[in-house]
Amino acid sequence: MISPANLASRDACVARDASDPIGALRDRFVIPDGVIYLDGNSLGPMPRAAASSFGRTIEQEWGQDLIKSWNSAGWFDMPLRLGDRVGALIGAAPGQTVVCDTTSINLYKAVHAAMGLRPDRDVVIAEAASFPTDLYIIEGAMASAGRPMQRRLVGADAPSIEALLDQRVAVVVLSQVDYRTGALLDVAAITEQVHEAGALIVWDLCHSAGVVEIAFDRHAIDFAVGCTYKYLNGGPGSPAFVSVAAAHQAAARHPLSGWWGHAAPFAFDRDFRPDAGIRRFLCGTPPIISLRGVDAALDALEGVEVAALREKSLALTELFIARVTALLPDLDIVTPRQPSLRGSQVAIAFDNGYSVVQAMIERGVIGDFRAPDIMRFGFAPLYLRFRDIWDAAEILAGCICAEVWREPRYSQRFAVT
Amino acid sequence: MISPANLASRDACVARDASDPIGALRDRFVIPDGVIYLDGNSLGPMPRAAASSFGRTIEQEWGQDLIKSWNSAGWFDMPLRLGDRVGALIGAAPGQTVVCDTTSINLYKAVHAAMGLRPDRDVVIAEAASFPTDLYIIEGAMASAGRPMQRRLVGADAPSIEALLDQRVAVVVLSQVDYRTGALLDVAAITEQVHEAGALIVWDLCHSAGVVEIAFDRHAIDFAVGCTYKYLNGGPGSPAFVSVAAAHQAAARHPLSGWWGHAAPFAFDRDFRPDAGIRRFLCGTPPIISLRGVDAALDALEGVEVAALREKSLALTELFIARVTALLPDLDIVTPRQPSLRGSQVAIAFDNGYSVVQAMIERGVIGDFRAPDIMRFGFAPLYLRFRDIWDAAEILAGCICAEVWREPRYSQRFAVT
Repeated sequence: MISPANLASRDACVARDASDPIGALRDRFVIPDGVIYLDGNSLGPMPRAAASSFGRTIEQEWGQDLIKSWNSAGWFDMPLRLGDRVGALIGAAPGQTVVCDTTSINLYKAVHAAMGLRPDRDVVIAEAASFPTDLYIIEGAMASAGRPMQRRLVGADAPSIEALLDQRVAVVVLSQVDYRTGALLDVAAITEQVHEAGALIVWDLCHSAGVVEIAFDRHAIDFAVGCTYKYLNGGPGSPAFVSVAAAHQAAARHPLSGWWGHAAPFAFDRDFRPDAGIRRFLCGTPPIISLRGVDAALDALEGVEVAALREKSLALTELFIARVTALLPDLDIVTPRQPSLRGSQVAIAFDNGYSVVQAMIERGVIGDFRAPDIMRFGFAPLYLRFRDIWDAAEILAGCICAEVWREPRYSQRFAVT
Repeated sequence: MISPANLASRDACVARDASDPIGALRDRFVIPDGVIYLDGNSLGPMPRAAASSFGRTIEQEWGQDLIKSWNSAGWFDMPLRLGDRVGALIGAAPGQTVVCDTTSINLYKAVHAAMGLRPDRDVVIAEAASFPTDLYIIEGAMASAGRPMQRRLVGADAPSIEALLDQRVAVVVLSQVDYRTGALLDVAAITEQVHEAGALIVWDLCHSAGVVEIAFDRHAIDFAVGCTYKYLNGGPGSPAFVSVAAAHQAAARHPLSGWWGHAAPFAFDRDFRPDAGIRRFLCGTPPIISLRGVDAALDALEGVEVAALREKSLALTELFIARVTALLPDLDIVTPRQPSLRGSQVAIAFDNGYSVVQAMIERGVIGDFRAPDIMRFGFAPLYLRFRDIWDAAEILAGCICAEVWREPRYSQRFAVT
């Protein structure tokens, strides 16, 4: 683990970049000139090879080969083939993951299936601070469960999961990394705790897949969902994934029973008979061109260990926190300082955060803002350099100082050094 | 209406092409050399302008502009903007259609919402000969309705819709054009009949949108769904559409309650509160790049009246039927001869249809085969010429003759002229 103490100057950062074992990966991505991109946790940048991959799919496979591409270009198998590739990044053996639909829809399938596997229980636990679509989809899944279900919220109904777990709990839905604070949950411990209570876990990996180590099989995770357009860089709105433990598949049912999930989609049977395996989590015809973006994105991760990404990610966030703290000691960093509790982002609460983020964007540092007062900075180790972090911290400090200068009320709260 | 009598020779067809008022539209599409493409009812060909449209979205909007494209490139508004464009093709005023997800998932939403609007009724009618995913999805929607529902099948439980309509029927789901036979239903009459019984209608327009005139508003259709990759040419697996009559929207609920359907998606409320209008039929983040294919496809339809497409489509199918019948009088054409009962395809039952379709593909005429014995030929008026139809009929006849020659058992059934 790199210590920020070794990175006491911009030159030291430049030197560190030169020796970074995964520094060359940056060349696999298109990073616009003059941009320090700290929003890869919202939309990852384009892999350099994606353009030709899309071009081939559009002009040759669709344009020239037309319907035969369903077989010749492997379109039919993309959801499973890409699923296995994503599975490899989250520690799931092949045959347990498919890429299709959206995170919201995949969560609906997963929560439905999980509730169905615990028919004698009637409670779903979620986090009050979840990304809201998770709460909304759980609401929809509960309403269509076929039996009365209740929701319990960590952070509202009780401060901890333990306090909410009992024999009534069927399913627990949690995000490994909080989309606002960047706090990282202990997947191993929580999954075990949930299992001890006889419930099933659904992990939302939107903010962790591709940047945090995940051991789907080793930790006996039941279900996982996640998107492919953040740290996986699949392109805007690229299809999401859903993983279902092999042990659950035969009994895991959901009502989005489209023909792609049928045991024999081209037999054109009158009644639905789900595929025996993970294919039952497919529904309709997937958007092939957007799927090709996921393919190109996974190519750009080829040969890279998630462990190496995680190590660099922590070094980047560590450096950013250290630099920001050195420049602005009183800043309210809401992301945990302890590395084991931190995902791959740093969130800072600041009243006028929206203005600061806009000012930073004008200076080429792209982060984002989440109401009411969170400035969010994502640190993607695939393409960010240590010097970028150094510069971003300087620019952040400068923009905050300008804000403080403009609005004297801040000067009472911040000792700007 | 053109009479096949006027097209008694290939030269007459060539002349007809020269005077075809929409003949120039063919230039808007990429048709591979040497191909007569009669499979646009499975996957439409690429609009010529699509490549640059995709390229701009991929390289500029994603590659260079990154997250700001959600606003600057109009990504956020695409499902509604494209929805209104599709709406214009099916006679639905703006604000009633969105493009998102898949046909299967949109059908799930529509059937759910329709069942919810008839809470005191417990029957869903569908066709036994539906494209199977419709039956499978209806099964899933009924199972998650929250009350016991029953299915009645036209063509299995009774020969006609009338025989099945009674006070218990909540929803009727029908395809305007049968995917196998190409038979066209009378939307106006059936919708009225369903309404008289107090039920709601969901029309599946997969095989009619873009090629048959549809009057969503004028016929007071309740819900419609359809894909965009057949006669609309949006690209492989391009997102589907769902239309919901304005009068139903405020009360139309479905359980795929993702954040894109929320009244204030960026307020990050804890509870789901659906948008007042058609946005409530959105769910998660759509695949933007595949959506751009729909955009390019609708551009290629710009300035074209569906009425003109329908007129040419009927002339094409009429010519094909006339030529095939002239060459092979005993062939079993399962598509209705009466124009008002015919969609935009011609289906022919033939025991060895699979071999014939393969042989035709080798000779450049691409159709497809649906088990057990249906050869399907789609006639897309946007890019097919009369001479193509002439040639396709000749090649079909040749391939069937070869088959008959190889397998003498056919000669007892066909008088090959």
